[in-house]
Amino acid sequence: MSSFGSIFKVSTYGESHCASVGAIIEGCPPGMPLSDADIQPQMTRRRPGQSALTTPRNEADAVQIQSGVEAGVTLGTPIGLMVRNKDQRPHDYTETDHYPRPSHADWTYLLKYGIKASSGGGRSSARETIGRVAAGAIAERYLKLAYGVEIVAFVSSVGKVHMPDSETDNDLLSEDYLKLLSTITREKVDENSVRCPHQETADLMEERIVEAKSKADSIGGTVTCVIRRCPVGLGEPVFDKLEAKLAHAMLSIPATKGFEIGSGFKGTEVAGSVHNDAFVKKADGKLGTKTNRSGGVQGGISNGEDIYFKVPFKSPATISQEQTTAKYSGEEGVLATRGRHDPCVVPRAVPIVEAMAALVIMDAVLIQNARKASASLLPPLETPLPPSMSLPPPQKAEEIVDEIVKTQQA
Amino acid sequence: MSSFGSIFKVSTYGESHCASVGAIIEGCPPGMPLSDADIQPQMTRRRPGQSALTTPRNEADAVQIQSGVEAGVTLGTPIGLMVRNKDQRPHDYTETDHYPRPSHADWTYLLKYGIKASSGGGRSSARETIGRVAAGAIAERYLKLAYGVEIVAFVSSVGKVHMPDSETDNDLLSEDYLKLLSTITREKVDENSVRCPHQETADLMEERIVEAKSKADSIGGTVTCVIRRCPVGLGEPVFDKLEAKLAHAMLSIPATKGFEIGSGFKGTEVAGSVHNDAFVKKADGKLGTKTNRSGGVQGGISNGEDIYFKVPFKSPATISQEQTTAKYSGEEGVLATRGRHDPCVVPRAVPIVEAMAALVIMDAVLIQNARKASASLLPPLETPLPPSMSLPPPQKAEEIVDEIVKTQQA
Amino acid sequence: MSSFGSIFKVSTYGESHCASVGAIIEGCPPGMPLSDADIQPQMTRRRPGQSALTTPRNEADAVQIQSGVEAGVTLGTPIGLMVRNKDQRPHDYTETDHYPRPSHADWTYLLKYGIKASSGGGRSSARETIGRVAAGAIAERYLKLAYGVEIVAFVSSVGKVHMPDSETDNDLLSEDYLKLLSTITREKVDENSVRCPHQETADLMEERIVEAKSKADSIGGTVTCVIRRCPVGLGEPVFDKLEAKLAHAMLSIPATKGFEIGSGFKGTEVAGSVHNDAFVKKADGKLGTKTNRSGGVQGGISNGEDIYFKVPFKSPATISQEQTTAKYSGEEGVLATRGRHDPCVVPRAVPIVEAMAALVIMDAVLIQNARKASASLLPPLETPLPPSMSLPPPQKAEEIVDEIVKTQQA
Amino acid sequence: MSSFGSIFKVSTYGESHCASVGAIIEGCPPGMPLSDADIQPQMTRRRPGQSALTTPRNEADAVQIQSGVEAGVTLGTPIGLMVRNKDQRPHDYTETDHYPRPSHADWTYLLKYGIKASSGGGRSSARETIGRVAAGAIAERYLKLAYGVEIVAFVSSVGKVHMPDSETDNDLLSEDYLKLLSTITREKVDENSVRCPHQETADLMEERIVEAKSKADSIGGTVTCVIRRCPVGLGEPVFDKLEAKLAHAMLSIPATKGFEIGSGFKGTEVAGSVHNDAFVKKADGKLGTKTNRSGGVQGGISNGEDIYFKVPFKSPATISQEQTTAKYSGEEGVLATRGRHDPCVVPRAVPIVEAMAALVIMDAVLIQNARKASASLLPPLETPLPPSMSLPPPQKAEEIVDEIVKTQQA
Repeated sequence: MSSFGSIFKVSTYGESHCASVGAIIEGCPPGMPLSDADIQPQMTRRRPGQSALTTPRNEADAVQIQSGVEAGVTLGTPIGLMVRNKDQRPHDYTETDHYPRPSHADWTYLLKYGIKASSGGGRSSARETIGRVAAGAIAERYLKLAYGVEIVAFVSSVGKVHMPDSETDNDLLSEDYLKLLSTITREKVDENSVRCPHQETADLMEERIVEAKSKADSIGGTVTCVIRRCPVGLGEPVFDKLEAKLAHAMLSIPATKGFEIGSGFKGTEVAGSVHNDAFVKKADGKLGTKTNRSGGVQGGISNGEDIYFKVPFKSPATISQEQTTAKYSGEEGVLATRGRHDPCVVPRAVPIVEAMAALVIMDAVLIQNARKASASLLPPLETPLPPSMSLPPPQKAEEIVDEIVKTQQA
Repeated sequence: MSSFGSIFKVSTYGESHCASVGAIIEGCPPGMPLSDADIQPQMTRRRPGQSALTTPRNEADAVQIQSGVEAGVTLGTPIGLMVRNKDQRPHDYTETDHYPRPSHADWTYLLKYGIKASSGGGRSSARETIGRVAAGAIAERYLKLAYGVEIVAFVSSVGKVHMPDSETDNDLLSEDYLKLLSTITREKVDENSVRCPHQETADLMEERIVEAKSKADSIGGTVTCVIRRCPVGLGEPVFDKLEAKLAHAMLSIPATKGFEIGSGFKGTEVAGSVHNDAFVKKADGKLGTKTNRSGGVQGGISNGEDIYFKVPFKSPATISQEQTTAKYSGEEGVLATRGRHDPCVVPRAVPIVEAMAALVIMDAVLIQNARKASASLLPPLETPLPPSMSLPPPQKAEEIVDEIVKTQQA
Repeated sequence: MSSFGSIFKVSTYGESHCASVGAIIEGCPPGMPLSDADIQPQMTRRRPGQSALTTPRNEADAVQIQSGVEAGVTLGTPIGLMVRNKDQRPHDYTETDHYPRPSHADWTYLLKYGIKASSGGGRSSARETIGRVAAGAIAERYLKLAYGVEIVAFVSSVGKVHMPDSETDNDLLSEDYLKLLSTITREKVDENSVRCPHQETADLMEERIVEAKSKADSIGGTVTCVIRRCPVGLGEPVFDKLEAKLAHAMLSIPATKGFEIGSGFKGTEVAGSVHNDAFVKKADGKLGTKTNRSGGVQGGISNGEDIYFKVPFKSPATISQEQTTAKYSGEEGVLATRGRHDPCVVPRAVPIVEAMAALVIMDAVLIQNARKASASLLPPLETPLPPSMSLPPPQKAEEIVDEIVKTQQA
Repeated sequence: MSSFGSIFKVSTYGESHCASVGAIIEGCPPGMPLSDADIQPQMTRRRPGQSALTTPRNEADAVQIQSGVEAGVTLGTPIGLMVRNKDQRPHDYTETDHYPRPSHADWTYLLKYGIKASSGGGRSSARETIGRVAAGAIAERYLKLAYGVEIVAFVSSVGKVHMPDSETDNDLLSEDYLKLLSTITREKVDENSVRCPHQETADLMEERIVEAKSKADSIGGTVTCVIRRCPVGLGEPVFDKLEAKLAHAMLSIPATKGFEIGSGFKGTEVAGSVHNDAFVKKADGKLGTKTNRSGGVQGGISNGEDIYFKVPFKSPATISQEQTTAKYSGEEGVLATRGRHDPCVVPRAVPIVEAMAALVIMDAVLIQNARKASASLLPPLETPLPPSMSLPPPQKAEEIVDEIVKTQQA
């Protein structure tokens, strides 16, 4: 449906050419400082027209908080968000009245609803992602303030141009690449307009995008995202494993075709004895894993290591190049789509991936905090648990929980 | 949480070594013939001990319908399902009392709950998937009876052994492979115990699994699944796109590390002009697509073409080989896990993937039928829709809907 | 939380003195004519300042559809709705900075969130109900167009002034009163500003309200609501019985203290032999009930008879009269609340009750249509059902369903 | 649907004459001691055949925990519960093959599903409530251990026999009755088989039930329930107010026709100046209310005072007395229902009301704990809140939250 999350719940509305797009965010903890300015930076990173590599549609995308905040602090009540649509040019799309655009949503929306918005993809437009990015910025703000969580995404490939080490020969990611994941910042990512932190690769990527644009064509790519300092214990067995929610979130972004976490597809080729992440006592005295093929999640639950995953975005369906395709009537013809479109979506997809990641983590945090806080109120067990069911020496449930909370706050 | 779906909703319970595992299925349409025997075949395909390639744990996994069915017909009320656990050997696991097993869920369950089941992974055990498979068999039965839907999964790789054409050099799947997807049957898949429909590859896969087993090691692989004759119009924009729900479902299966639909990761390397699926008038007079890089889903909505996707399963974490790893106490040691385990999970994962696919499609069908049936009761519009919002010549919403229904029933 | 419904889902935002209040409505069937003008009438019936009996706060409450509608027709996508707050006077409330107002939500919001809106009750303000009324108007429009459903509420008591026959001596409602329920219209209800369809009683009610106002006091009352031509088969056993959802909906309206359906509290005093609604063949050849003590619902499912229920609203907590009460600090003092308030809420509650009723019925319709439409696609049973499980002579499930649909459309 | 709650979620299955009835409970906090014996007492209070006043159907209703508990302690994973149906006599119901029983669910189930269970009401049978009572016992156990919550229900009327002071002349409950609510125990309630704590009234009630039974008739009644030591801050504005969830829960119990909380229907007749609950500093130094017309809930949120409410149950529909009514075929006839039925359900309804109350409070506790625990992790505000938004002197959000937690644990 049009909402996401179970406690931190986001509902969005808006087509590409209606009066406004917006969102309602429920479940934001009360007492958090929040203003339009805290949301705007990610909106600006997402907005069209930000560089020569993106669609020339020009929208300031200025977000306005409608409710749920007073004196600059969240009330705990629903936060209404609105962004006015300004640069609307519905006339651009008249040609597509006769043609369902290939690999676009025109045809399936008509199959689903028996009616479709007159232009620009309606609800399937990239403008729909505004609400997500705004909501994600709020989630991320909480995660940062409460736990120091860091979420950074970047472009790891455009067409056949891949970041070095982002794909491997020996089926597992290199130490260097994992180190990059553990240190990369948004500032570094934004140093070029492709949003690839490896400048030489970024240059090649830019060339590839410009080539697509010059041919009135388009090209796909991948976005990699890392979540650092994620609280442990997140993810709900069995259907709402953390990676399942992340995959759901990512595949809900327009143009995505997949998801892989940790060692992903290539990792399946490696024997368990090599692939397993052995445990070690870390510098802080706590257990951690020596390697991180799991990608920060084991059994569907976060283990405190970096969570990293990769998301493929197909080449945009809307291209100005002529395409031979059938009209709604079945008659074959040649379509050259006018309108303003991105030749490659991955640079603008970066903040969207970050936003969806933040929404998943935030909701998981609230659910886990419900459990932890509630379990911590139980009296100590009269009979200690057997060693097979607890930490040796047996600890009372609430001590474990307290310790976890402290660790997370540290 | 422990339930999946919004109208066709499945809740499951059960650890690896408790009295029984089971499920409650809500929202099954009334009036459908159903008995234990309709569910059992997929249970049997999933059960352990079925071949030398799987765990020797021996469970008949005989399902018993508890409620919701009378005189062999569904009542529309919740269907209770139960499978008794029989071959329990909790003593097998005593060694792991001291060690969190690497890449297993022991440690994260303890982090999450402050307590863990004494053995065998508890809720993270593969026995948890019984409820899913049973529920999926019911969903699938409805989809087959009402729409003729066919869901077939198979093993597309084990370790580095891939089915021919399942991976490509030119970044797009071959015609041959797509043809295989359009014709493959479960009978064909079950011709060998690896469940790979290409016999020579199956032989190599079996060798690879036997090699792993002989080394007390394990190996991963991928499962590919195709859904044929899927009704059009399924999937809920924007957060519950059909592929997002499929990804969620697949990543909720233990040991999965990813998901890709249609052209997937490799497709991102192809220009839009090549990647786009042009429309054509098909033999039946309806619009379809010439190619199917989209994988049967556009804009998050099914378009009637084959839906196909691939799911990677990591090598099983539990191996009998010695592993150097830390104890719960932080002390380093050497763990050799006893117990009964699969050297490779993909053969048994085949029915689980099919089940989860069926659950996703079934729930989407019910939601879309709510919309279609409700829209069809509206009176005709007084003013016809403009051409840009409807099929030319403008059709009344209910005619379109009727036509869709007819098509689906045909 | 801040959303209501499972398929036809309404989320609202907004406090009493923020920029705007609004709602997002998901799940509205596509192809329905809809404009601001279809929503406004109920907004106007709800708005403050409409008569001398209501708060003088003056808000036009002009609703603006933001999305989900194009060319005056619903797209099936989320409908964003917004109403700007205009006549804000936060300074009215400074005195309550020191006092939690007795029987108001100031204190409990502070207990819950650790922070509260600075004035006017924040989210607990009656302005929150704007989103519900707007959403309800959309639901009602569909129900009217598709099924001819009629929902009419009215004031059945103010203080001790009750409509004749609305309470009974013999523990069951009179024939006259049930006849009034079966014929009452909104036009009739709106003939006086109290919204009581019995003019002499309305005059007494008005006197009672004026008396309360003149004493800077307040008074409570009850609203009775009838739903006519409700489709049969609505309500989901067992937890979401239709009356359970109606009760939930009504008790979610500010100031309500109860709910009773059909014979309600008094009906418990009557023996089963008298209370039971015997079946009769009605004029149209269908089964119906001779009496209607059940209130149109049996076993949690609508049976096609009129659904009627009553909702008590307490006297408004905010009064200008002096009240001895404790400050936040615990110190006793005397509070005389300034600000603009209703001396009696029931006249304005009428459209809110109607809106919530419409939301419940609409969501139940969509869920039931999912079931009916899906069941109707199953092939006929090979073995007919035994008579104990079906209508005699045994009918195929889909015939029954078809018949039901036809009846509802008739 | 067939599940209740959002975090502490209960799903149930089972008809009156199937193999077993059962439930799955998700979201139970880990680390809580739990065994069959903790659940059984409420099962036994609910079971049929416990006295001459109830149905002679004889079921031990022995509950068996299937999962989610090990070594007598909850694991935090889903708890599967099962109760076998034993004393089945489906043949008792053959006569009703021709007649839909008046005021029973036979007809509406057929309208809804197009098929019905062959006997005994199927899913609408009282046996369905077994799952609720078992789940409620688990919820209650947590609430007792963690917060000392006490939930006690009792029969407040049978037919026209009411407990003294349970209804009032002056429109508000007497001091004596409120005192009874604050002290009543289950032991006291169980002193007689009617479960009315006022023995003389209980004798009259018993007479009334015996009279109904001797006439092959039935009679209704009301159950009053009090929740003491309920944590403050429970209930989610705006749609999930605590009283809305309680009303939903109560109206989901078979045979209920209403709900009122606090001063309820009669309270609407009292002026605000009398009805308002003034604040006072209580003995423990905290704010509380002098009176409690609100019934422990203000603005939809619990305030720490006793929560009390009343639920009317209609006279059971199934009576052995002859009734003139139409057959399914429309033909009029005379029905005398055989089978075993309660002449009055309220004595057995007592534990069901308690169970549903516990489920509502438990779910609300988990949601509120998610909020509190998450808010408490935010750093202190740099700028203190204005006095109008906080307690004077301004407290930091987390201090308030801490204090609340401490109070609740005290």
